[in-house]
Amino acid sequence: MRQTLTIVKIGGNVVDSPEKLSSFLSDFRSICGSKLLVHGGGKIATSVASSLGVETKFIDGRRVTSPEMMDVATMVYAGLINKKIVAELNAGNCSAVGLSGADAMSIVSHKRPAEPIDFGMVGDVESVNGEFIAGLIDLGITPVFCAVTADCNGNLLNTNADTIAEELAISLAELFDVRLIFCFEKEGVLDDDGENARVIPFITNESFNELKASGIVNGGMIPKITNALRASKTPGIMDVIIKGSDNLLKASGTTISYE
Amino acid sequence: MRQTLTIVKIGGNVVDSPEKLSSFLSDFRSICGSKLLVHGGGKIATSVASSLGVETKFIDGRRVTSPEMMDVATMVYAGLINKKIVAELNAGNCSAVGLSGADAMSIVSHKRPAEPIDFGMVGDVESVNGEFIAGLIDLGITPVFCAVTADCNGNLLNTNADTIAEELAISLAELFDVRLIFCFEKEGVLDDDGENARVIPFITNESFNELKASGIVNGGMIPKITNALRASKTPGIMDVIIKGSDNLLKASGTTISYE
Repeated sequence: MRQTLTIVKIGGNVVDSPEKLSSFLSDFRSICGSKLLVHGGGKIATSVASSLGVETKFIDGRRVTSPEMMDVATMVYAGLINKKIVAELNAGNCSAVGLSGADAMSIVSHKRPAEPIDFGMVGDVESVNGEFIAGLIDLGITPVFCAVTADCNGNLLNTNADTIAEELAISLAELFDVRLIFCFEKEGVLDDDGENARVIPFITNESFNELKASGIVNGGMIPKITNALRASKTPGIMDVIIKGSDNLLKASGTTISYE
Repeated sequence: MRQTLTIVKIGGNVVDSPEKLSSFLSDFRSICGSKLLVHGGGKIATSVASSLGVETKFIDGRRVTSPEMMDVATMVYAGLINKKIVAELNAGNCSAVGLSGADAMSIVSHKRPAEPIDFGMVGDVESVNGEFIAGLIDLGITPVFCAVTADCNGNLLNTNADTIAEELAISLAELFDVRLIFCFEKEGVLDDDGENARVIPFITNESFNELKASGIVNGGMIPKITNALRASKTPGIMDVIIKGSDNLLKASGTTISYE
């Protein structure tokens, strides 16, 4: 019988606040069965970069990762944030190991082509070493991934944390029944920007197209839901949910299902 | 039959130079059988701390690790240096995973008592999770440890890298035939400070006392050899060698044996 594996992704809203992070990790530890955590960056990297005199460059409003910024990302994501999360999980009797994609080539990427836009040290995922990750899980370990990957030549690359969670889910669905949960600052995908906004309980590919056309879903939510929809099509991925990081253990949020 | 495990420790002289590091890692990959690497810090942490406005404090000439300095150590040792080494080993077909003591409680420490001198966030090793590390080695993984440990309450602590190598060797000697190699900037323990210095090929506890009394061995070499002697007494530790990081694969250096 296949085991269940719950993959949870958290972003800057949790990582930037020690109180929110502790509260989230306490909920995360309570998840039954095997689990895996993916964490994004947060504002610490920007402030460390600024203190070190590393400039943040943008092209068309999108961040460019210079080699110096990649060093900062490696320090902050793979070092400071990752090890603090791991130490706190272990202190709460959840045996966790912090990983980047470089470790055991667990997530191999290649540098995004410089044309049409050169985003610098950004990696698009090429493959996942599911056998290694499953081996860790079999040892009773909870893997904790930061958003740093590596190519086959030993270069560390910056990769979107939502994408990492999605790629891990797709690969590990060959071995586990996967539940994929994207946590963020809102309670789910909302039907309105205003005060009376309600969570949309269910999004399919068809309703997503309507929500985009009407402008209800826009901006950064579009790639997030696109990622989630792509994952939901994969056999072995049982659930894909976008929900609030405060409500990890509650039945809440938006369920994403292709059909 | 027990497997052989080679544990190698490198310090700042290798870590601070990308060329020396590449050359060392190329040698390290050629070691037959299971292996494990421990790396110290280097000057990068000092320069990052200085850029971030974190002051380095000393008491009686010994460094004090403030909480801010511990954050820098976590960024630089567990993040930047550790992941660069791991990515480079993997690119050379040596499947490596970077670890701190916090990961899977692999090296649990406790904060050194504040009396008589408060060294801050410094951890003395309490226990090693040999079962987890052996589990990784069984998966074909080369563990790469930085000099960061954690206590049971989730606090990250700074621990001497020589001590980490020694404690890992002692613990893993229950499961493996261990070879322990301390690499540093000289070719071995030298019999003189001058140009005609020669490597002392063999040091026992008795000859160590003589070398200390005559002043031939002094300063930082004393704790290094004391560590090595302590390890050499452990059943299951076959060899303890102090040698040059340039000569990893050559028969060279000083063999340390208690009797």
